[in-house]
Amino acid sequence: MVAPVATDELRGRVETLLDNGETETVAGILRRIHPADSSEILYRLPPDYQSLVLLELPWEEVADVLEELNQEEMAEVVQGLSLPELADVLDEMEPDMAADLIGELEEDQAAELLDEMEAAEGVVPLLEHPADSAGGIMNSPRHMLRRDMTAGQAMQFLREHYDDEHDLYYLYVVESIDPLDIDSATMPSGDRDRLVGIVSLRTLILADPLARLEAVMDKELLTVGVDADQEEVARLLSRYNLLAVPVVDDDNHLLGIVAVDDLVDVLEEEATEDIYRLAQMSEQAVVFSPIPRAIRTRLPWLAANLGTALISSAVVAQFAGTIAAVSILAALMPIVAAQGGNAGNQAMTIIVRSLALGQIELKDFWRVFRHEAGVGLLHGLALGLILAAVVYAWLGNPVLSAVIGSAMLGNFLVAATVGVAVPMTLRRFGIDPALGSSMLVTASTDILGFALFLGLASYFIVGLVG
Amino acid sequence: MVAPVATDELRGRVETLLDNGETETVAGILRRIHPADSSEILYRLPPDYQSLVLLELPWEEVADVLEELNQEEMAEVVQGLSLPELADVLDEMEPDMAADLIGELEEDQAAELLDEMEAAEGVVPLLEHPADSAGGIMNSPRHMLRRDMTAGQAMQFLREHYDDEHDLYYLYVVESIDPLDIDSATMPSGDRDRLVGIVSLRTLILADPLARLEAVMDKELLTVGVDADQEEVARLLSRYNLLAVPVVDDDNHLLGIVAVDDLVDVLEEEATEDIYRLAQMSEQAVVFSPIPRAIRTRLPWLAANLGTALISSAVVAQFAGTIAAVSILAALMPIVAAQGGNAGNQAMTIIVRSLALGQIELKDFWRVFRHEAGVGLLHGLALGLILAAVVYAWLGNPVLSAVIGSAMLGNFLVAATVGVAVPMTLRRFGIDPALGSSMLVTASTDILGFALFLGLASYFIVGLVG
Repeated sequence: MVAPVATDELRGRVETLLDNGETETVAGILRRIHPADSSEILYRLPPDYQSLVLLELPWEEVADVLEELNQEEMAEVVQGLSLPELADVLDEMEPDMAADLIGELEEDQAAELLDEMEAAEGVVPLLEHPADSAGGIMNSPRHMLRRDMTAGQAMQFLREHYDDEHDLYYLYVVESIDPLDIDSATMPSGDRDRLVGIVSLRTLILADPLARLEAVMDKELLTVGVDADQEEVARLLSRYNLLAVPVVDDDNHLLGIVAVDDLVDVLEEEATEDIYRLAQMSEQAVVFSPIPRAIRTRLPWLAANLGTALISSAVVAQFAGTIAAVSILAALMPIVAAQGGNAGNQAMTIIVRSLALGQIELKDFWRVFRHEAGVGLLHGLALGLILAAVVYAWLGNPVLSAVIGSAMLGNFLVAATVGVAVPMTLRRFGIDPALGSSMLVTASTDILGFALFLGLASYFIVGLVG
Repeated sequence: MVAPVATDELRGRVETLLDNGETETVAGILRRIHPADSSEILYRLPPDYQSLVLLELPWEEVADVLEELNQEEMAEVVQGLSLPELADVLDEMEPDMAADLIGELEEDQAAELLDEMEAAEGVVPLLEHPADSAGGIMNSPRHMLRRDMTAGQAMQFLREHYDDEHDLYYLYVVESIDPLDIDSATMPSGDRDRLVGIVSLRTLILADPLARLEAVMDKELLTVGVDADQEEVARLLSRYNLLAVPVVDDDNHLLGIVAVDDLVDVLEEEATEDIYRLAQMSEQAVVFSPIPRAIRTRLPWLAANLGTALISSAVVAQFAGTIAAVSILAALMPIVAAQGGNAGNQAMTIIVRSLALGQIELKDFWRVFRHEAGVGLLHGLALGLILAAVVYAWLGNPVLSAVIGSAMLGNFLVAATVGVAVPMTLRRFGIDPALGSSMLVTASTDILGFALFLGLASYFIVGLVG
């Protein structure tokens, strides 16, 4: 472990050194600090400096540094490298990270690159899977033991092959192949690797060195399909306190492993996605994104909301006569709409998060709805009464006070209904409930809130209707 | 590994068995399935059945099951146990989980319980630390090696002591003590355990069996202070791809270890906290909470928002004359306010999340502000023009169209300002920026949006001002 450094200060020094043409010194500094830190410094350098520094480092170190960045950042940093240079770097990277980077490139560029690479066969299978599926985040299993190995052979094998603690999660045992059988030896690796069991290092250490693995291994093991969503994989690991889970195809061939430390990033990514979508942005929003990207991730949502705002505006316009007669209604109507929006967003957010965490499913709809309707009714009664009292104290009009209190209660029931129905319906149709729920809930509580309040006011106060 | 089960179906069967008094059969079933599944079934049983089942299980298994629940759920489930029974269960639990459960109890009850416990000394130090600090989530280091052990002795020690893969993260080396020196042997454990290095299992396996650990260990290691926030610990592990990090006090005594699999829960918890707070709820909200708790976690926020809504209402009331003269203004004004609210919440959410992920800090204020002001300006221009065009097409009034377009642009600049300033200011004063930012941002864009639009309209259309 290399000690962490204050990257902000170091970046200043590095830029000065580069201004003076001391690229080698900079490469030396970046090699001495942790890749997590050097990647941060590198990413913030001007583009032409980035290439200069990368070309000064051994490919293996470039790979280490790139692996600390996310896929968009990687793609930005390597822009100055030639295709053969990039291929050399990718050969040194973890297959899942290399696949992420290749996924960011144009199709023909990616194909050329894979042609140029030597380790392409580890990456190609990963490219077939969506980046957010088990197949997209898995890594090659580093140690596949064979069922006909003895415990002693397995220990010897480990002593020779393993690199670091990350390799020790679990040791997977696959179907053995007869080395003399040419057919099985030339099978694609997937066909040879049918998963049959798992052993722990503890078992290996304690077992009779002559015992075969098939006799000591645990045959009951949890696997995930290659298409499983990464969030589902995270939940499984967390629920059963596993350090890693094997990824298999339909025939139980071991394709890869997803380990708990890879999932830390997944969980942060998924949480960020939900948070940004709930705030009506694309999940690709980032804090210092270039302006065109910032606009692309936000403006479409604002424009869609402008559309729903124009609809509520048209609804209010229907009551122009009422408002002309009693203009204080205009001051009061946003209260009813806003409170409904807040209550609806509370309910919607709980539903979205509980769906994401697997705490509720579609079949819980009625149970959730009854619960939220109950909460909404009580909130509506409490806040409706308070608001009625405040309005009475302010304007001294008992009818107006009753109208606004009732409209508030009504809009809380609207809020509970749409707060549950909108995310559940989106999920029902396979759409992420975090996506669009805020807009739909707020539009409903705005439109119905305005209509309820102004409708009741028109009837009971102005006498314009009925 | 025991295979997962469909807990919903099994729960039905379990309830039927309990109705028929077959408690022993149920205990047998719960012992055969994974504790993560049995805990879920147990938690959803009626309270009197919960105690019946718990008393039928060995304390060790009760401990395993409880550990799968969160602290509030644990406290609910054990309500039927007597104090001595609960003490026996706690003796079997992981110290950090036991501390969480004890933290849920009344103070005198907790004290009695600790008196009754045999393993209280592992729990007491944890109770001194907040539940969301490194000290609150750490566990005792399972293997402390001594610097004067040889690699061979260390391997032998491991063979004898370790239980499962979770033990193999890293092996910590502490200052040796002389077993003949009575003073050091009777020191409190914290004083004996000054952390001096770390060895990997790989190093142990490959080292000369006679080499002392102090000669082969890595002395540069990353530690966290016992008071570090759990989110900070999660970020550190994730940034440096660590499987575990040692927790030390000011004198570098090894107090515990936080491992990556414990952090999966922490990350989900922190993300949920942010999501709920951004939606203006207490982080204690849960989907099927009892009604009083649902109200406690949401009503205060709604009430506070009612307060800000009344303020905007009072602002609008100042323009009652303007609205009476041109009642269509009432229909248009919510558009300006709502768009500002949306834009402000986008900016605020990016800031809150980026602060949480450590992507920005307080010193980035001006950089972030310039960026958001730029984005806000462009959004305001684009959407202001669109809105002006729509209003002109709808109502044919060029002055009104110019007024609403300008008000929109103005409110986008307000949104960018408060969207950055509010969360950064909260953080500056040590308050979680997710807490209250939504309310403050929306209140600002509502009040200033209404005031801008109605103010401009009063001046340019109605001629009431100036």
